[in-house]
Amino acid sequence: MLRVPQDAIVAGVRVLDEATARYVTRVHRLNTGDVFLAFDPVHALEAEAEIVSTNGPVHVRLSGPVACTNLPRRRVTVIQTASKGSKIEDVLRDATELGVTRFVVAVGQRSIKRPEASQTSRWVRVSIEAARQCGRGDVPELAGPMPLAQALAEPGDVRWLMEPRGVHVRVAAASATKGATVLVIGPEGGFAPEELELAERLGYLRVSLGSFVLRTETACAAALGAIAALTDAG
Amino acid sequence: MLRVPQDAIVAGVRVLDEATARYVTRVHRLNTGDVFLAFDPVHALEAEAEIVSTNGPVHVRLSGPVACTNLPRRRVTVIQTASKGSKIEDVLRDATELGVTRFVVAVGQRSIKRPEASQTSRWVRVSIEAARQCGRGDVPELAGPMPLAQALAEPGDVRWLMEPRGVHVRVAAASATKGATVLVIGPEGGFAPEELELAERLGYLRVSLGSFVLRTETACAAALGAIAALTDAG
Repeated sequence: MLRVPQDAIVAGVRVLDEATARYVTRVHRLNTGDVFLAFDPVHALEAEAEIVSTNGPVHVRLSGPVACTNLPRRRVTVIQTASKGSKIEDVLRDATELGVTRFVVAVGQRSIKRPEASQTSRWVRVSIEAARQCGRGDVPELAGPMPLAQALAEPGDVRWLMEPRGVHVRVAAASATKGATVLVIGPEGGFAPEELELAERLGYLRVSLGSFVLRTETACAAALGAIAALTDAG
Repeated sequence: MLRVPQDAIVAGVRVLDEATARYVTRVHRLNTGDVFLAFDPVHALEAEAEIVSTNGPVHVRLSGPVACTNLPRRRVTVIQTASKGSKIEDVLRDATELGVTRFVVAVGQRSIKRPEASQTSRWVRVSIEAARQCGRGDVPELAGPMPLAQALAEPGDVRWLMEPRGVHVRVAAASATKGATVLVIGPEGGFAPEELELAERLGYLRVSLGSFVLRTETACAAALGAIAALTDAG
């Protein structure tokens, strides 16, 4: 069934906003009597929506909302250090598909571009769209932008900082068994020595995915694949 | 040291082609007497190149070539089923960074776009550029485009077909220990039932990275991260 993000799902008749109405009736050609699944990824609720009128504004009748069931089964936080271009959006999209539960935008000493808090609404839209596409019932919590030194305080049982000179992920595997995971992904220019020292003092393990220097978006998806392979849900 | 791809490295003086000359002297502002590392990713050879003249065509003196040492340590084949847009290029870039040794472009029943053999030269350029960026001394062997049914004959000790309804990668981990690995990545529309049956007959395990439907480029990077975490080099 077509899944359509909606905020604040309450049982009863409501009017779809213009963009959603166009998406449902033009792009997907649904008509009066057709049903789609409305989901509110921020609260992880979903409800069946029956189209009751398409003359003028599109009206739908929502059933009583229920909790979404297709949710991540483990807690994984990604701390993404800002890079240039739209890479934060690319990484956030991957992270949403791969079940990340909290996504922290950090600014490191070598971050070429410092993201603005005003980009947050754009990031929310990206994560909601990724959730819709991949069939996920919720979205990652978003935090930041904040200094990397502050982001490193994120709690976790397994805490990895991805770095080409770290121990190979297969060796690190022994330490990754269960519980909440925190992954730190660097910017293009890598981490500054003081950032690496701070991370080590805080108990982060420096982990590499091989001997090649990964782009920031490749590093995130590959590290999440490794975590999925290694850790029990929990 | 700056790494610059070159074909057919032979000791002695040679003229750089125009694009390489521009890259070395304009983008990186090297001058007569400066040295860069020329590498031939197709043969995994490298040599020091000293700039001997920049009046007119740029001449360099190449040292005797030696074998590149930064090479993948395991054999991994990716069979990428064609999707639309430039996604094959995106996946190939990720695959090169993550150490894939053979990359097969396949055409499945649900491939929206059928790639042309004429795109191969573009793919070669993409993999060489990715190798340069990530510090890798060689490039994946390229094969295809070929029908998926034919590509599935690729030999391997661990053979996974990535599929949202497969066994979870953590469960599949028990079967992934050592040796050459083959990963099959589907197109946007997924695999046709006959393709799944054929893969199963050929001994492929259907493996999922979680309960969400991944885009093809996310699936490849995450599966390669899982393989890096699980299998011994060999």
